[in-house]
Formats: sequence, structure tokens, C-alpha cells
Amino acid sequence: MTALAPHPDRLFPADPGERALARRLHSSVADAPIYSPHGHVDARMLLDDEPFPDPAALLITPDHYVTRMLHAVGVPLDELGLSRPGAAPTASGRSIWRRLCENWDAFLGTPVRFWFESEFSEVFGLTEQPSAANADALYDQLAETLARPEFRPRALFDRFRIAVLATTDDPADDLAAHLALRDDPTFTGRVLPTFRADRYMHPDEPTWRGRLSALGESAGVDTSSYEGLLAALRARRQAFIAAGGTATDTGVIDAGSEPLTTAEASRIHRAALDGSLTAAEAVAYRRNMLYRLAEMASEDGLVMQLHPGVIRNHHRPTFDAFGPDTGHDLPAVGAFTAPLTPILRDFGTDPTFRLVLFTVDETTFSREIAPLAGFYPSVYAGAPWWFLDTPAAILRYRQAITDSAGFTKTSGFIDDTRAFCSIPARHDMSRRVDASYLSSLVVSHQLTEEDAFTIAGRLVSDIPRSTFRLG
Amino acid sequence: MTALAPHPDRLFPADPGERALARRLHSSVADAPIYSPHGHVDARMLLDDEPFPDPAALLITPDHYVTRMLHAVGVPLDELGLSRPGAAPTASGRSIWRRLCENWDAFLGTPVRFWFESEFSEVFGLTEQPSAANADALYDQLAETLARPEFRPRALFDRFRIAVLATTDDPADDLAAHLALRDDPTFTGRVLPTFRADRYMHPDEPTWRGRLSALGESAGVDTSSYEGLLAALRARRQAFIAAGGTATDTGVIDAGSEPLTTAEASRIHRAALDGSLTAAEAVAYRRNMLYRLAEMASEDGLVMQLHPGVIRNHHRPTFDAFGPDTGHDLPAVGAFTAPLTPILRDFGTDPTFRLVLFTVDETTFSREIAPLAGFYPSVYAGAPWWFLDTPAAILRYRQAITDSAGFTKTSGFIDDTRAFCSIPARHDMSRRVDASYLSSLVVSHQLTEEDAFTIAGRLVSDIPRSTFRLG
Amino acid sequence: MTALAPHPDRLFPADPGERALARRLHSSVADAPIYSPHGHVDARMLLDDEPFPDPAALLITPDHYVTRMLHAVGVPLDELGLSRPGAAPTASGRSIWRRLCENWDAFLGTPVRFWFESEFSEVFGLTEQPSAANADALYDQLAETLARPEFRPRALFDRFRIAVLATTDDPADDLAAHLALRDDPTFTGRVLPTFRADRYMHPDEPTWRGRLSALGESAGVDTSSYEGLLAALRARRQAFIAAGGTATDTGVIDAGSEPLTTAEASRIHRAALDGSLTAAEAVAYRRNMLYRLAEMASEDGLVMQLHPGVIRNHHRPTFDAFGPDTGHDLPAVGAFTAPLTPILRDFGTDPTFRLVLFTVDETTFSREIAPLAGFYPSVYAGAPWWFLDTPAAILRYRQAITDSAGFTKTSGFIDDTRAFCSIPARHDMSRRVDASYLSSLVVSHQLTEEDAFTIAGRLVSDIPRSTFRLG
Repeated sequence: MTALAPHPDRLFPADPGERALARRLHSSVADAPIYSPHGHVDARMLLDDEPFPDPAALLITPDHYVTRMLHAVGVPLDELGLSRPGAAPTASGRSIWRRLCENWDAFLGTPVRFWFESEFSEVFGLTEQPSAANADALYDQLAETLARPEFRPRALFDRFRIAVLATTDDPADDLAAHLALRDDPTFTGRVLPTFRADRYMHPDEPTWRGRLSALGESAGVDTSSYEGLLAALRARRQAFIAAGGTATDTGVIDAGSEPLTTAEASRIHRAALDGSLTAAEAVAYRRNMLYRLAEMASEDGLVMQLHPGVIRNHHRPTFDAFGPDTGHDLPAVGAFTAPLTPILRDFGTDPTFRLVLFTVDETTFSREIAPLAGFYPSVYAGAPWWFLDTPAAILRYRQAITDSAGFTKTSGFIDDTRAFCSIPARHDMSRRVDASYLSSLVVSHQLTEEDAFTIAGRLVSDIPRSTFRLG
Repeated sequence: MTALAPHPDRLFPADPGERALARRLHSSVADAPIYSPHGHVDARMLLDDEPFPDPAALLITPDHYVTRMLHAVGVPLDELGLSRPGAAPTASGRSIWRRLCENWDAFLGTPVRFWFESEFSEVFGLTEQPSAANADALYDQLAETLARPEFRPRALFDRFRIAVLATTDDPADDLAAHLALRDDPTFTGRVLPTFRADRYMHPDEPTWRGRLSALGESAGVDTSSYEGLLAALRARRQAFIAAGGTATDTGVIDAGSEPLTTAEASRIHRAALDGSLTAAEAVAYRRNMLYRLAEMASEDGLVMQLHPGVIRNHHRPTFDAFGPDTGHDLPAVGAFTAPLTPILRDFGTDPTFRLVLFTVDETTFSREIAPLAGFYPSVYAGAPWWFLDTPAAILRYRQAITDSAGFTKTSGFIDDTRAFCSIPARHDMSRRVDASYLSSLVVSHQLTEEDAFTIAGRLVSDIPRSTFRLG
Repeated sequence: MTALAPHPDRLFPADPGERALARRLHSSVADAPIYSPHGHVDARMLLDDEPFPDPAALLITPDHYVTRMLHAVGVPLDELGLSRPGAAPTASGRSIWRRLCENWDAFLGTPVRFWFESEFSEVFGLTEQPSAANADALYDQLAETLARPEFRPRALFDRFRIAVLATTDDPADDLAAHLALRDDPTFTGRVLPTFRADRYMHPDEPTWRGRLSALGESAGVDTSSYEGLLAALRARRQAFIAAGGTATDTGVIDAGSEPLTTAEASRIHRAALDGSLTAAEAVAYRRNMLYRLAEMASEDGLVMQLHPGVIRNHHRPTFDAFGPDTGHDLPAVGAFTAPLTPILRDFGTDPTFRLVLFTVDETTFSREIAPLAGFYPSVYAGAPWWFLDTPAAILRYRQAITDSAGFTKTSGFIDDTRAFCSIPARHDMSRRVDASYLSSLVVSHQLTEEDAFTIAGRLVSDIPRSTFRLG
């Protein structure tokens, strides 16, 4: 067996002077509360506070970072617990866990392994690296651990020192779990909904019409017209604000934002309901909706998060078999400056408007995102996300963004995860890399030590709180 | 108060051996004369040699690197002294300076702060970091300093050891300031005009017709025809050469260079004058003009600088209020290899022709610029420019360019600045980063120490002199 | 004279701890056999085993990495031995060699200089850096050396410890040299053909019709129809497999892979033969052919190598004078994810299918190649290639690829060279950079030392053998 013992100096620079300072910078924020303003944990999990299911269902099956890599080295997705939406999985938790252990080497050098090592060691107390030989023993140990009361969601929420956890929610969601949590005197955490209206922007999707109806019911507004849809979205944004929400989130294939006249948008809306929508109209409608969401954000002050440029469901046979979010969403070429012209022309200097830009194409760091954030008061450079949420890419982000946007126009870290137990490890990775970056600036005399400590503290506290208007 | 004391080892590598060598490499060139073959200082400033105006008008208002970042953190541009072109600014110099001091932290980690710290300390002798508390005192100190005779432009020109300073000038400019400076026995500096004909390439711009007339008058050539325009440009290039010019500069949205027949270009020229120009014709005309500028360069040997790919005046309301060059020119996706095919096919191996390529999209470093400079004898890799004139980006430039283009096919540093007092700091940053890069090559045994010293010297002297044909 | 003495620690990191470990990691694989699964050496050279011709004809003229850089600093290509295809060169070997020596400084900091220094020192025993002064003496020394029996191709093949050498071959090639080598009891090396069908994919090229006939003869199949062409390619793939081939190679301007119906492809095939082909049809035909090659790979298991995105013969006058492969093939913008959708939809999870992706646009490392290799079991991230086969770019490759694809989904190093004597130096560069990268992961506690040694070994052995199905 090989010991599992994450080193206290992991991710710090090699140079002894840089390392010593990085260690001190990290220490100063290592135990700071976690602001998680963007993620995919389910509020109901915290409301119900039930014990987690088996280790595989907690740690592997729902985490497409993990399943995609196992799939890449030859493990079929059904052996990892995936199934046609609604159908029961065929693989047992134990056999799923074995697949991970057998292929543990495939993760060498990857952030998934970093997160898992931290999480296994620091959250669950494992002391051995997973392997084919110890797979069953570790599974038993994890299963026993998860059954203990101190491993229920709320206990972990407290232990993780989560100050704010934002979820991602459909506008039609009644937010019952959020409201119940807020009103539950036994829970003192802060769990906020995030308004994500993607599904109402794509009139070419077969589910659009049904979504409209559900939204209309939720908002108490007739959404059969375009203006009705806008009114319903506005109403639901107010409901999200009432439930504590401070932000929205939008994922689109491109950031095009050309507005349409109400007449033209209404005409396309009707065409979509009539079944006579063209592909070009669907694109124009979607881009107008992005503009309208920005317009609403300039009215109500919800922070607008935008992450364009992801090709969803690249492998059609996998989508047909297992549904979305199964590891084959892939980055497209990113673009912000040109497509966002209409939004930034009209709202870019509006103090109520705030736009956080995320990318999976790192060429946009120095070419688009930092220059935009370095001029427009409304624009913030979102933390490295998804494929770029890695030690090497976080460092490249800082090296490319700071030049034109400094630190104050960056968003602060977001974990974007549905893997609840990985949250501390993910924030810790970010804190370690930022400490290393700051240390390198101090050692090369680009920053004083005092300023470095100040920035390290702000990056985990003031900056996310201010960017996401968390109060 | 916090001390302002730029460290002598700033920007050097962390490793002690690398740092010691970087320090020695830098020392060997730290006092070398400055060749500034591309910039935006006004020759008349040196001719008149008047005391500089107040600190804000010298250091803040005209420098869009500075104003853009302050705007990004919420300072309105009119509070920084910007005003509608021709109108008087409403903010006092003192209040503008206060805005900088209050927001000094926004620049932490940015090259603007590096330049300012060097400049404040080494040029103006400040000893405190700016802050809200000391803003007025520092303002008074700077104002007094600027009133002293040794802070007049010519005295600083000498103190900065500027060997050559190239300005940027319209072809219709009579170059009176340059000629007067050349003929002034009390000024021994070398100030060269650079021919920038952008305004004659865009027949769709409302000012084009007026520019044509002015150029025609300046050249003594009727520019109402396309062939007249070409003749006028050729005449003015000769005038620039007579005034000491060695180079031209061109900024276009893309590097397309497909030539037109004279008949077709003439037809479009007439259409523009008639008001019947189409958008496609304007593009074709502009690309043909780029080709013609290259053709002229192959005839008269003026070095052709090209920096395509900047979206000018992204925020229309700011442009309407404050005019151009106000911080919202933004990088576009760069492309050289395909669009320059016509120019390189016809002039790429012509020994009279020389083309220096600049980019604000660093993806072109290894993909386009270095491969082009590594085959075509006429092509040089321009120094990292604008958003990329930063310690981290200069290092990335060297790491990406050297592989395919070595050192001899790079242009040498250009400061591209209108901030006269920042020139030494900008060149020093470049020298420090190059010393660090060369040191890293020596320590990893990719270069001998002797070769590193030779290259360090050539980068600040032979290379810019040879690239820009400075004699 | 300056000593030529490549340092044993070259390319290792500066930090002493990192360097010591990198040295040990490199030592563990420095003498490992070379797997060269992709290159351009001629099998007949090994079959004939004649002494190499003069030094220039071996080291300079055929190596466009070398001639391009000399051309870039002003040496005309005919002075480097290039001539119109079929015509005799006009420059003597000695004068060609002098051009290299006179311009030796142009290569400072480049990988070409690294390879040459290693090769000159370790293969040929030179002890002085080339210079104008010693050019003739070095030439004489090299010429004498090449005349010795231990410098014949087979002796060097053994001395270089080449375990497998793959060549690149036209499907119409009779593979006589490969078969003769295989059946030669005096040669124990393994030399494999690689099937490269590019010439049959471009019906718009003037040579296409002639190529079809030659292929038809070679395969014994009538290729005047589209289906005949497919049958001939299938037959020749079997012949390559019979001769030991395990892989194919394809270079196309883009990775578009939309299939056509047989009827449509047949119609275009006939149009090409009739001379009525349109440009759009040629593109559609080529993309369909890429799909068909993938389909064949899913049937016969030949590993499909793909390197799209190179603009061939950028400088038309040089092409007209000297033919192809003369240094002005240049990188285009890369794209994989969208254009490969049809191939990956249909074969991406097929265990018989394997696709190795190479790029000359490094923006695709983190944006496309690693995410694809991190989901599709069939996809491998090809080693950094051509302009990116450099110490700095190999490091960037690892830093960008490992995050999403780990080590096991990378291809292992390929040298892609026609410069036989540079093979050990090229593999050594890769091994040194990988050792440095692994060392940095260990020192920052992202990898255990034990795992680093395991990976270092696998990268030069199991990984190329497994990726290229070498058994």
C-alpha cells in the first residue's frame, strides 16, 4: 500500500524563499470562511440533511470531472453508475468504486487527483492511496464514515466553514428548499439561489414550449407572448431576490447580444410556438434574450454571470444513452469583445449593472477578458473555470489577467461543483496557487509583502463578497 | 506612509544563481542609450522646450493605460481631465491626481504601477507611495519639481540618454518641428518622424475627403484620383525620408492585403467621393492600400510597421463624449499568415522590403509571427506591445518567439508611449525581463554566459538600430 | 575558438532540488531504446546502408528547420543546396556548410542549435562551436567521419538504440525496401511503413488523376470510381499491415469530416475526372475522405494520426523555384472539436479506432485536444510537433494537457524528422523536458517521486508502444 498523505507544502513554488512566503500567505487564509458564489449543490440536500448515499453515488457518479477521465481510459459510463435519465443504474456502488481504484493512476498529475487526495485525507480520514488491492476495504471504510452523524450535510457545511453557498436554479423553481432553509432556526448557514434562465432562451429546443408553461405558472404570468415571457422572468428575478439571490448565471454557445425590437422578438416568439421557427431566428432570439437579461440586471442589480463557448453534448450516442452533463461538453473558441458590444454599449458604465465573464478558452484571458475588465467598471474577470480550474491554469490566469485588470477586477474563486465534499479542497487549491503567485510577485519585488498579505485576504473575502454583492 | 523604493533586483528570477546572473546582465545594459523607434511623443514638445504643465496633465490625463484602469474601478473619465475634443477639462490637476492616489491599490501587480514607481522614484525623487493621505503633498512636490529647469523636455531627453526618438506623424504633417529640431544647433538629439497613413486607407470614414485635400495640399499633388493619392503618399514618404524618417506605421482592423487593379481601385475611389461607396468596397480599398504601402516600402526602404487587430472605440458613448484614445480600444483575434499572403508573395524576399509585425493577440506569437519571421528575410517579430508590454507577457513572447525566430529576427523594444517621462522605466522593464530570460537560458545550459552578454547588448543597440535602419 | 560541450544538466530546472531530481529522472531513461513511431527517414537508406553523402547533404539541405532559419537571416535557398526538383544543386557541400557556420549565431536559443550541438558533439565528436573561422576544418572532419564504416546508417541505427522506426509512405509504394529489410537476416531493427493517403484526398490537385492510376496499379484495383478508390486504399492498408505497419498519417488544411453518401462522393469523383469539379466539391470530397479513413481505421485497427492546420507552400515564388517542403509551410488556426464531430460520433468509443491529434496551434492544447482525449477513449494527445517541438513548448504542452488528459492519454514523443542523425538529440530533448516537468510536480508535491519515475519510464516505452500498437 502507498500512503495517502497530502503534503502541507503542496502547490508551493520550488525556490525556498518563495516557498516560505507562499506558506505564510496561505496560512493567513487557509482557515478563512468559504464564499462559494457559484455552484451546483442542491439546496434540498441541506434542507433534508439525510445521510449521504453510498460512496460512489456521492463521489463518482454525479461528478463528470471524474467519470469523463475514467471513460477516457476505457471504462464504460454504465459501469460508473450512469443510466438513461430516470432509469435505475445497473452498477453497484462497490463496483463503481473499484473502477476508480483500478484506474487511480490515470489521474496522476491532474486536479481531480489533487482534490480527491485532499478530500479523502482531510474530510474522510483515509490513509492509503486507492488501488485495486484495497478498493473494498476503502469502500467499507467510506461507507461506515458516511453513516456517522458528523458526516451529514449540515455538519459538513459547518465543518467546511462555508459562509455562503450559492446554488443554480431554474426560474420556475419555487425555491421552497431555500425558503425553508432560511426559515429553519436550526440552520444558520446562508444558501442562496442563482437564477439561470438558459432554457427560456432557446425556442428551437423541443422542451421550450413546456418550459414556458411551467414558468408562466410559477410566475403567475401568461408566457405565450414574448412580453409575457419577459414579465415572468422579471417576476421570478424578484422572487429570487426575495429568497436571498444576488446573481444570475447564463451559459450560451456564443456571447452575441444584438437586441431585437419588441415587434421582431414577438414575431419570432410566435413563430416558435407555431412551429415555423428558422435556425437564424432562433439565434437572433437567443442573442436578444441575452441582451434582455443584461437589461434586467441593470434594473434589479442581480450580478450577471456569463460563460459562453461550451459545445454541449458533443457525443450524440452518449447523450442518447445517458443524458446531459455526462462528460462530453467541450470548449469552443471564446469571444467576448465583439459579441458583447451591444450590452456594454448600453449598460457597460451603469453602476447597477455587473457582468462576470467566465471562459474555457484561455486565449481570451489577455486578449479579451482582462482588457474589458480593465476599462468597463461593470465587467469582472471570472475565476478560471471547469477545464481551467487547475493549478497550472490558475497561475496562467493570474499571469495573464493581472497585467490589465489587477486583482480588484477579478471575481474571486468559484468552485462550480456538484461534488459537495470537494468544496474545501477546491478552494484550498485556489488559495495555494494564489499564495504562490503573490509570493512570486513579492520575491521579484513587484509587490510588497504587506500588500501581498492584504491581497491574499481580500481574494477570499472582500473580493467575492463585493463582486457578487453578498453584503 | 509607505516608502516608495523600487528594489534594484525587481523583476529578476527567484533562484539565487539565476538572479545573480540576471543582475549582471542587466547591469551591462542598464545605462545603455535608449533607442525608441516607435512612440507617440510630440516633436514640438522638444522644439519648444517649455516646462511641463501640471503633474496630472503630464502623467495621468493623456495616458490611457492609466485612465482606463481608474475608469475600470469606477472613476468617471471627466474626473480624470478628459473632455470632449476641444473643450476645456472640468477637473483640476490636483483633483485628478487625488483620484490616482485614492485608487493606487487598483494598480497593484500591474505594469502601470511598475512604471509609475520607477518614474516617481527615479525621475521625480518621490519617496512615499501615493495615498489619499499624502496626495496633496505629493502633488505640490511634483508641481515644484516640474517647474525646475532640469525638468524641461530637453534636459530630460538628455538625462534619459535617448539616442533616437521616433514620433508618429500624419503624411500631411509639414514636419516643421522635426526640421527645426534637426537644424537647431542647441539640440543634439535625434528625433525622427514616422509616416502613418491610416487615415487615407478608409474611404468610408467621414473625414476621408477632408484628409485627402489636406494631403494633396501638403504634397502639391491632386489627390482627387486614386493615382493622385498614391503619388501624394509617395511624395510625402520622400519628405519624411528627407526629415530623417526611416519607418512607417500602420494600424488596421485586419492584415488583409489583396491588391486591386488600378482601374478597380480608381473606381472605388471615385465611388467614395461620389458617396456611393459600399462597405465591401471600403474593405477592398483598405486592403489594397495596405498592399500599396508595402509596395512603396519595397521601393523606398522605409521599414513597414504593422499592428493589425485592434477594435477602436469599443464603447460608443465614451467615444461620443471624449473622442478616441480614451481606453476602450480593445484587442481582436490576430491573423497574419493568411491575410499577408499577397504582400509576402510579392515583396517577402525583397531585400529592400522590411515588415515588423506587432500583435495584441499573443496566440499569434508561436503560431504566426515567429514562423513568418523564421522564414521571410523581410519579416521581424515586433516587441510585445500595448496590453502585452508587461513583465509576464514579455517573458511569454521570448519563450514563444525564440524557438522559431531566435533573437536576431526580433525588433528590439519599442515603448509606444505618449508618456514621455515613462520612457526610461519602460525600457528598463524590458531590459530586466530580457536579462532574466537570458539568465534562465544560461542556467539551463541553453546558452553560454558569453553569448548571453552579447545578446543582451545587441537587444538594446544593434538589433533596434538594424531593424529600424537607424544607421 | 569556442568549445562545443553540451552540459549534462542542460534543460533542467534552476532550483537545486528540482534539478537534482530531474537529473535522476532523466538518467533513468537516458539510455532507453528509442521508439520513433512517426518520421520521414527513408527505409531504403537503411536497406542500402551506403555511406552518407557529404555533411551538407546529410545535415543541412534536406532539413527545412535549418534552411528556413538561414533563409530568414538572408541566405538564399540555392546557396543551401536547394534546387528545382530534379535539377542539380549549384552550391558545393563545403560552401553550404560555410553558410551555416557563418550564421551560427542566428540559431542561439533555438531548438535547432540544441539538436545540432548534441548531434555534433555526441554523434560526430566535434569539440568546437562552428564559426566562419573553423568552417573548413569542421567540414573536413565531418566528411572524414562520415566515410568511416561505423557511421553508415545501420551502424548508427544500432548505436542510437532505435527499437522502432516508422517511415511515411505513399499507399502506392510497393514497400519493397520495408519487406527487404524485414527479410534481411543481417538487419535486426524494426522499420515500419506508415500509410499516408493525403494525395488521394484532393481531387482539385493536378496530380490527382495520375496518382489514382498509380494507386490502382499498385493495388490491382480500378480506381476510376470512388468505390474503386476506397477498395484500393483498403487493399493497400492490408499490404501495409502485412509489412508491419501499425499506423496511418494524414495532413489536411482542416479537420472537417462530414461524410457524403456514396452516390454524392461518386458524383464528385466523376466530376473531378471530367474536369468539372468545383472548389466546394473538392472540400466536401476531402472531408468525406477523412471520414472514410477513420471508418477504415475502425475496421482494421491502424492508428490514425491526424495533423490538420498547416498552410502549405506559403511563398509561391519559392515553391515555383524549389518545390515543396522548403520552409514556408506555416501554421493555421487549429480546430478539432467541431470539425471532428462526425468521426467521433460514429467511431469515438469504438475500441478498434484510435486517433492521435497533432497541432501547430498551441491554443488547442487546453481548449480542444486535452478535453477530447479526456473523454473519448479513442483520442490521444499527440506530442508537440514541428514549430512546437521545443523545450519551452513541450513544457507548455505538459502544463496544458495533463490537467484534462493526464499522462496516459498522451502519445509519447515523435521526432517527425528527416534528419536521421538528429533522432537521439530530439528524443533526448523530450526526455529532459519531461524529467524537468515531472520533477516540478514532485517538488510541489503533486506527484510522489516513485510515481514520477514510473511515468518517466512509461513515457519512453509503454506509452508510445501502446498508443501506436507496436506490440
